[in-house]
Amino acid sequence: MAGNGLGTLFRFTTWGESHGPAIGVVVDGMPARLPLEEADIQAHLDRRRPGQSRYTTQRREPDQVKILSGVFGGLTTGSPISLLIENQDHRSKDYSDIAEKFRPGHADYTYWVKYGIRDYRGGGRSSARETACRVAAGALARKVLGPSVTVRGALVQMGPHSIDRTAWDWGEVERNPFFCPDAAAAAAWTDYLDHIRKNGSSIGAVVEVVASGLPAGLGEPLYDKLDGDLARALMTINAVKGVEIGNGFAAATLSGEDNADEMVPLADGRVGFLSNHAGGILGGISTGQDIVVRFAVKPTSSILTPRRTVDLHGRATEIVTKGRHDPCVGIRAVPVGEAMVACVLADHWLRYRAMGAAST
Amino acid sequence: MAGNGLGTLFRFTTWGESHGPAIGVVVDGMPARLPLEEADIQAHLDRRRPGQSRYTTQRREPDQVKILSGVFGGLTTGSPISLLIENQDHRSKDYSDIAEKFRPGHADYTYWVKYGIRDYRGGGRSSARETACRVAAGALARKVLGPSVTVRGALVQMGPHSIDRTAWDWGEVERNPFFCPDAAAAAAWTDYLDHIRKNGSSIGAVVEVVASGLPAGLGEPLYDKLDGDLARALMTINAVKGVEIGNGFAAATLSGEDNADEMVPLADGRVGFLSNHAGGILGGISTGQDIVVRFAVKPTSSILTPRRTVDLHGRATEIVTKGRHDPCVGIRAVPVGEAMVACVLADHWLRYRAMGAAST
Amino acid sequence: MAGNGLGTLFRFTTWGESHGPAIGVVVDGMPARLPLEEADIQAHLDRRRPGQSRYTTQRREPDQVKILSGVFGGLTTGSPISLLIENQDHRSKDYSDIAEKFRPGHADYTYWVKYGIRDYRGGGRSSARETACRVAAGALARKVLGPSVTVRGALVQMGPHSIDRTAWDWGEVERNPFFCPDAAAAAAWTDYLDHIRKNGSSIGAVVEVVASGLPAGLGEPLYDKLDGDLARALMTINAVKGVEIGNGFAAATLSGEDNADEMVPLADGRVGFLSNHAGGILGGISTGQDIVVRFAVKPTSSILTPRRTVDLHGRATEIVTKGRHDPCVGIRAVPVGEAMVACVLADHWLRYRAMGAAST
Amino acid sequence: MAGNGLGTLFRFTTWGESHGPAIGVVVDGMPARLPLEEADIQAHLDRRRPGQSRYTTQRREPDQVKILSGVFGGLTTGSPISLLIENQDHRSKDYSDIAEKFRPGHADYTYWVKYGIRDYRGGGRSSARETACRVAAGALARKVLGPSVTVRGALVQMGPHSIDRTAWDWGEVERNPFFCPDAAAAAAWTDYLDHIRKNGSSIGAVVEVVASGLPAGLGEPLYDKLDGDLARALMTINAVKGVEIGNGFAAATLSGEDNADEMVPLADGRVGFLSNHAGGILGGISTGQDIVVRFAVKPTSSILTPRRTVDLHGRATEIVTKGRHDPCVGIRAVPVGEAMVACVLADHWLRYRAMGAAST
Repeated sequence: MAGNGLGTLFRFTTWGESHGPAIGVVVDGMPARLPLEEADIQAHLDRRRPGQSRYTTQRREPDQVKILSGVFGGLTTGSPISLLIENQDHRSKDYSDIAEKFRPGHADYTYWVKYGIRDYRGGGRSSARETACRVAAGALARKVLGPSVTVRGALVQMGPHSIDRTAWDWGEVERNPFFCPDAAAAAAWTDYLDHIRKNGSSIGAVVEVVASGLPAGLGEPLYDKLDGDLARALMTINAVKGVEIGNGFAAATLSGEDNADEMVPLADGRVGFLSNHAGGILGGISTGQDIVVRFAVKPTSSILTPRRTVDLHGRATEIVTKGRHDPCVGIRAVPVGEAMVACVLADHWLRYRAMGAAST
Repeated sequence: MAGNGLGTLFRFTTWGESHGPAIGVVVDGMPARLPLEEADIQAHLDRRRPGQSRYTTQRREPDQVKILSGVFGGLTTGSPISLLIENQDHRSKDYSDIAEKFRPGHADYTYWVKYGIRDYRGGGRSSARETACRVAAGALARKVLGPSVTVRGALVQMGPHSIDRTAWDWGEVERNPFFCPDAAAAAAWTDYLDHIRKNGSSIGAVVEVVASGLPAGLGEPLYDKLDGDLARALMTINAVKGVEIGNGFAAATLSGEDNADEMVPLADGRVGFLSNHAGGILGGISTGQDIVVRFAVKPTSSILTPRRTVDLHGRATEIVTKGRHDPCVGIRAVPVGEAMVACVLADHWLRYRAMGAAST
Repeated sequence: MAGNGLGTLFRFTTWGESHGPAIGVVVDGMPARLPLEEADIQAHLDRRRPGQSRYTTQRREPDQVKILSGVFGGLTTGSPISLLIENQDHRSKDYSDIAEKFRPGHADYTYWVKYGIRDYRGGGRSSARETACRVAAGALARKVLGPSVTVRGALVQMGPHSIDRTAWDWGEVERNPFFCPDAAAAAAWTDYLDHIRKNGSSIGAVVEVVASGLPAGLGEPLYDKLDGDLARALMTINAVKGVEIGNGFAAATLSGEDNADEMVPLADGRVGFLSNHAGGILGGISTGQDIVVRFAVKPTSSILTPRRTVDLHGRATEIVTKGRHDPCVGIRAVPVGEAMVACVLADHWLRYRAMGAAST
Repeated sequence: MAGNGLGTLFRFTTWGESHGPAIGVVVDGMPARLPLEEADIQAHLDRRRPGQSRYTTQRREPDQVKILSGVFGGLTTGSPISLLIENQDHRSKDYSDIAEKFRPGHADYTYWVKYGIRDYRGGGRSSARETACRVAAGALARKVLGPSVTVRGALVQMGPHSIDRTAWDWGEVERNPFFCPDAAAAAAWTDYLDHIRKNGSSIGAVVEVVASGLPAGLGEPLYDKLDGDLARALMTINAVKGVEIGNGFAAATLSGEDNADEMVPLADGRVGFLSNHAGGILGGISTGQDIVVRFAVKPTSSILTPRRTVDLHGRATEIVTKGRHDPCVGIRAVPVGEAMVACVLADHWLRYRAMGAAST
């Protein structure tokens, strides 16, 4: 397999299952002498943590991170940083009903076919619990990028309901349980999602992540393009089914005139752009504008409505998933998406430095 | 840099610029004793070749491929296969007007910022000409996958005009210059694109690629998921701005009930699905259904309409690109998209074999 | 950095410092459904464990391994396996004398120059304590290789004293504290090493590792040759300064006639060899004979004899290392060398399967 | 396979067989704006070229390199550099006698077992002809390292005859056909090797490569240590059976006192060493002293003395290799060894830059 890691120079590897003793991540490629303490990571984990509103799974996890290596006297040492999060609330009984059945739309079936072994305790390795490790890695990536770079995410669509982009307020994102940047949309979503939740149903969503403060020149054409690496990293988040950069799929409907980001000289001698259809990336290389990516999250397949399925023995049956689940997993995908973007950018930042200095 | 290759076990590296003496690709990871001759590759290159209709660039290139290594007596030897395509029609004079200006929406600017050197002769490394190498690599990937796997692409949207999916006919794809599977849409697109072409404008498109005949079990969670690798590979094609799997962004609007692919036992003992919202991938692993991916291609930025820009010296100016360009680069992206999908699948097929046998 | 992992398909990443709370290793690429329990790993760790004789450091560590992920119901799941070993006996005070001085011949100085931070507590990341993680990974690699493959090591030279190869007895290896296959040599070494130990000195050694039971065909020319990967893996063990395969450096003195391993048909139709000068590898590919590798281990630089050195402030000084050290670190390198060989072979075994089946 | 490339940031991939139309190498990871022309590469190829004395194979090859990409206006562009060398003198008839027999000690047999296909025309991919591509890549690596770094090699032992190290003169290396730094040894080797050559025999050798001018701090512990990567790269050269750093195997015989490189402050504030037993590497990281590596080259297995072997059908037979062969392949391994060292150093130089700047 050997598929549980990401990155070339800033590389992390995650491990652990939803119902084992712990989960964790090893970050290999952290530069030395960066200040780092557990609180830096915990702040991000707390944003992803379940059980903070009625709109996310009621599994209670403190998600307390421990640094086991790579930090000495409050500074990174250049050695790998091992982070560990213990699992505490793993009520396996919740899953007894589904131990022998495959949830349609879930990785249950494909893990069974691929590995021939069934860890029925709540998704095992395919559980969204693993995304805590992504968030932890992302916190370290932010340290690599430094304070001049910000990576922020928001929920911009829940089911068919999009936000009003003219009402975008980053401050609002932290004031509602949806990471929604539009206060009016957040209010409307409250009722909408309550309805879905009470029906034991679920709904999809779209997340947008914006990275600001990066220089032009990040990305390694042709196959390690910045957008290619972002697409891969975001698509590997549980339940993600689509990724787009800048105008994304809407670019298909535009003419060359309308899609071009015209350029002008700025007063300070730098180059400015009159628009950002490109989402901050041209030819796989950052332009210096904001990096703008969006990804679609499908509705969770753990729902109360009975669905036709088969069991481990190939027999027809029905399934209802009664456990504690997110009516809209897209919500908690916001900090996860930020983390993935931060990790990809940190990796390319180090790669950029390797090559950049050669040129000067 | 070291970003010009793709794949873990089936790995290819491309090289060459649009106006150098040649372009090429080295495929490292081709299993031994597969029959291979130049005609196998040429057939796919001919589908991508420019100048075949008035809807693609009039650059005349025979794109004749030569096998320089890795084949002996008509069979692959297990050694790397080096493929070379000479550049013949590189009329550099076409580009003299733009040698000192950046095309808005083009990689001109970011290459300049990153590398500090300007190969103004038609895009250099960032030219779509490189995609011939992708198609060549894809032809070898198909050999790895064998005849039971088919990878086919089609243009499903041009500008705002989508096909009628109920009219889908794979046979139609090879009968019109758009790779369009819907005869009526193809007819309508003829007038539409003629109009755009005559105006010196350009338009975006959406391409869909379908892979059939694969077993369940391909893909290496969590970061080498099959959909993650597909997203990356497709996003690295020139001008691609979005990638989706199965329902893709539409999944954001669906409920868990509607998005689930219900499962039933088949008469032959295998497991069947009543739908394919997932696009053949769950948890990053193939389900055995068709793999369905789509990607959005932006309109080319080489257009006749003047756009504001800056020159190499940072001065404000305007630009008009007069050369020979595709009014809809999405058309020729169809065989390129097929090739990328085939390469990713071949790589995962070899990885699957590495791990699969361990289990039995 | 991102240099703390090894392997392509069977890949492991280690983390941890000698005086942190724990050390560990994540193995990514373990095939599913292999039986695995902690005792399988512990048996190998116990062979490397310090404090078992007066010839190894008196640091007392139970080196008790815990499996944190990737195993369910006694079988591997195909997910990454996280192993953790707590540090218990980390008497930092031993190191107070040397906190500000560089030990000549030790990594103290280069870590300081590279990372600009000093974890003076006993070597930190560069400590031989990390090799416990290698041994743990090696135990998993043996599971991948299966019971038909054996990987065994022995100390064949201590200082200037080589064994008598005609007296080689694998059974003897486990009966003396030196992993020496020659009972007479082991007896002689006892006095020799006692003398060195009492003088606070140290001595180098040569370790030989032999792998039996592998098929012909492992290794991926030209740059992932089996011997290239073995050389790298062994050279990365602390204190190793040389690696050789088969005849090794002695091959430089031989004629082509004398170095050739003549081949003969065997009764069972297979091909036999009349000698094994090649050490089981030709052209980077296994021949099916025993793989034979040797590596040289330098004497530890932690000694009682005063040596001239500089301190953190660049001032001239002298250093004496009083802590608990191995008079011959080559002894404990035996199980470590075995582990490295097993890991490389497991990786190539999986790669071989990926490609091999294609050919049939 | 996918084993035909080397390096993380400075990465090259070679292709081609001894008797195909051409061989070549693609270097991916060349920083932009470095001056490069074919003559820079040719100078190194000419040192490796066969047929320059009676002590190397009489195959006549001009080994004229062509740059096919990645250079514009005399400067590197940051895009991959494709280098091609045509094969001209491929007299396949020389090999007709051995088309169906395996040369003992040669890769013939293992390639056959692994790939199941026989390119009998002179070694195919396993031929030493591939080393021309290594030398070409090495010429580019030197450009990355810049003029302040020198990488020089010499033959220090031929068969049992070692040089007198006190007579070492780098200038002498280019004055005799053996790359021998000791004029007296070179004179003695002339008669010695003539005798071997006339008898149709062959002999092994030891090559030493020294790199000067590197900063301290290169190398990425623990598994991408500088010495580990050097060992791998050198071991993958045809016929190499051993690699050692600094004292190497001799370190096994030394005490800790004798092996320590004592350190002293230098007048300029830097740290100096009183010896270089370590060969310029401690803990896998460069110390700033010269990097010193040696490798053993076995005698070629293509000899006139009949040896017992088997044929493709498994039948016992004898073999005599009549073609044009090097009586001491170690001679031409000198520039190849230099190239491998330069490539590894260039890769680590880029990696160092990626991480180093983070610390400052």
